[in-house]
Amino acid sequence: MRAVYFDGAGGARTRSDYPDPSTSGESTVGVTLAGICGTDLEMLDGYMSYRGVPGHEFVGVVEESEAHGATLVGRRVAGEINVGCGRCGRCQGGMERHCPARTVLGIQGRDGAFAERLSLPARNLHPVPDSVSDEQAVFIEPLAAAFEISGQVQAAAGSRAAVVGDGRLAQLVCQVLRMSHNDVTCFGKHAEKLRMLEGFGISTRLGAAERGEEAGDSSVSKGGGQGSGGGRIADGDRQAFDMVVDASGSMSGFADAMALTKPRGTLVLKSTIASGGGADLTPAVIHEVTLVGSRCGVFGPAIEALAAGTVRVDHMVDSTFTLDEFGAAVGRSREGDALKVMLKP
Amino acid sequence: MRAVYFDGAGGARTRSDYPDPSTSGESTVGVTLAGICGTDLEMLDGYMSYRGVPGHEFVGVVEESEAHGATLVGRRVAGEINVGCGRCGRCQGGMERHCPARTVLGIQGRDGAFAERLSLPARNLHPVPDSVSDEQAVFIEPLAAAFEISGQVQAAAGSRAAVVGDGRLAQLVCQVLRMSHNDVTCFGKHAEKLRMLEGFGISTRLGAAERGEEAGDSSVSKGGGQGSGGGRIADGDRQAFDMVVDASGSMSGFADAMALTKPRGTLVLKSTIASGGGADLTPAVIHEVTLVGSRCGVFGPAIEALAAGTVRVDHMVDSTFTLDEFGAAVGRSREGDALKVMLKP
Repeated sequence: MRAVYFDGAGGARTRSDYPDPSTSGESTVGVTLAGICGTDLEMLDGYMSYRGVPGHEFVGVVEESEAHGATLVGRRVAGEINVGCGRCGRCQGGMERHCPARTVLGIQGRDGAFAERLSLPARNLHPVPDSVSDEQAVFIEPLAAAFEISGQVQAAAGSRAAVVGDGRLAQLVCQVLRMSHNDVTCFGKHAEKLRMLEGFGISTRLGAAERGEEAGDSSVSKGGGQGSGGGRIADGDRQAFDMVVDASGSMSGFADAMALTKPRGTLVLKSTIASGGGADLTPAVIHEVTLVGSRCGVFGPAIEALAAGTVRVDHMVDSTFTLDEFGAAVGRSREGDALKVMLKP
Repeated sequence: MRAVYFDGAGGARTRSDYPDPSTSGESTVGVTLAGICGTDLEMLDGYMSYRGVPGHEFVGVVEESEAHGATLVGRRVAGEINVGCGRCGRCQGGMERHCPARTVLGIQGRDGAFAERLSLPARNLHPVPDSVSDEQAVFIEPLAAAFEISGQVQAAAGSRAAVVGDGRLAQLVCQVLRMSHNDVTCFGKHAEKLRMLEGFGISTRLGAAERGEEAGDSSVSKGGGQGSGGGRIADGDRQAFDMVVDASGSMSGFADAMALTKPRGTLVLKSTIASGGGADLTPAVIHEVTLVGSRCGVFGPAIEALAAGTVRVDHMVDSTFTLDEFGAAVGRSREGDALKVMLKP
């Protein structure tokens, strides 16, 4: 089959002779459409030392299935990306996403979605309602990651939320937070991206998060020097927010997020690169801030929100490329004004 | 009066001509006994850019008081160290410890306890019960900081707790955690200090937290390279604890603490220096760990625990020096086997 193969040494190329997935006891899905996310760009830069087919945001049609997934054959599905061993304490306790022996679609030990076909267990697959388009369905996985925050942090009445970053993931996080907070402010660096958010009742501030706007942004300085923290933040915004989500992907964004958080407030870490290796946690101790690491989420709420139209994503579709155009797709995805770039196998 | 004065440039000397505290509208306390804590040692090394009389752990007798504190005159007291403006939203909301205009005894904008007399508002002073000795009363402030954790993190039934570090603060944290957890393990580097904890039903591991054992330990490498994280931790302990408290004061201790924490577990940041400037938060995102910054606590539970004997501190008293012997007291406090060094004005 045709697939993008990443050799782990900086090179990714499209092959037409890549072997079909052959994982026994799983379902085979023909990929209809896949999305490029910040994590994919980070991986191409060396994160996770991954080797194989990248891609973990997709919609497709089930071609074959193991016995208990037979009713899925022919159906349009999205797929949860973590596959646990199913036997350890964490899997038994409902924490398959944290199974120490897990594989992760297109990220760790399991070929991903930038291919004509992929393999996942039937239990990972979720039928997509007819009211959700293929383009919208590609957002189910990142939107689930945004909804994960709501499961981890309870919003008190009247609490103020802020998001640092205005990229792909930040856009979704803003909309999800707006469902539970009347007062959401996004700190970004792209006027056009911030304008999109204003249409959803979200306040915006242009100029914060100067370097890097999302995980995978190529301009991010990894593990480099850390800014003084919020030098660009207006006095009225400083320590003004009960909950702040750092979806900036940069150390300066993390420092901004810390400067925005109230004493005893909560700072949600939503991008791994912001957590490079130079974080100053002293303000977290002095102001007794709680930091919450947040990764993947369950698909149910994301599918429901897209079906009901309570979260909108159509305006975030940027452009669509074939697998053979993978290099151009990545190039476009790294540009500052790009949102969701898609691949159509 | 006699007082230790720190000039902010690395020099601390005892003066016999230091002016008496003259803060109007507050109470004057004659200091009976004061304790040296890791934060004092950090400040002598430049933390907080403090200039004035250091010291914030003390017991003393009220000599004079403002009108509404008149009943305190002649009483033996300990004192909460944060003094808020009393007017801002945080002070009105019970968060005086986070008042942006606060002074902090011996730490920020307010002379401290390494002197014959100090000044605090009557509302900060707590009478010490007769059953609590002067030596024990000096531990009220750090013990309150240990109890702060219990107010921030709820222990689930059967949950396992770990403490990284075996120094002054870690010893108190271990005993406090033991009140709510059947299973507490301390990771330290001093066999003798770990033996003390075993008497309280606390499991111990020797060898972790190699560099620096508590905030202020002079061997701590500030903001330097960070270890790979838990290379010395046995497989059975890795990601095995629901709650981990980092009281190590070192970056390697922080990395150890992260390696010990279960996915979705809680890591309490109990020392500022561990939070220097090189923290790697990537594991917190991947394993969805919650980090909780924790600073000072309220005095009530600490006084009760000392009066009831549910927390023991007598074995932690190391040695007692006069104010004139301050240099020697600091020297002793920096030694690896030292616990609480006291100053008697």
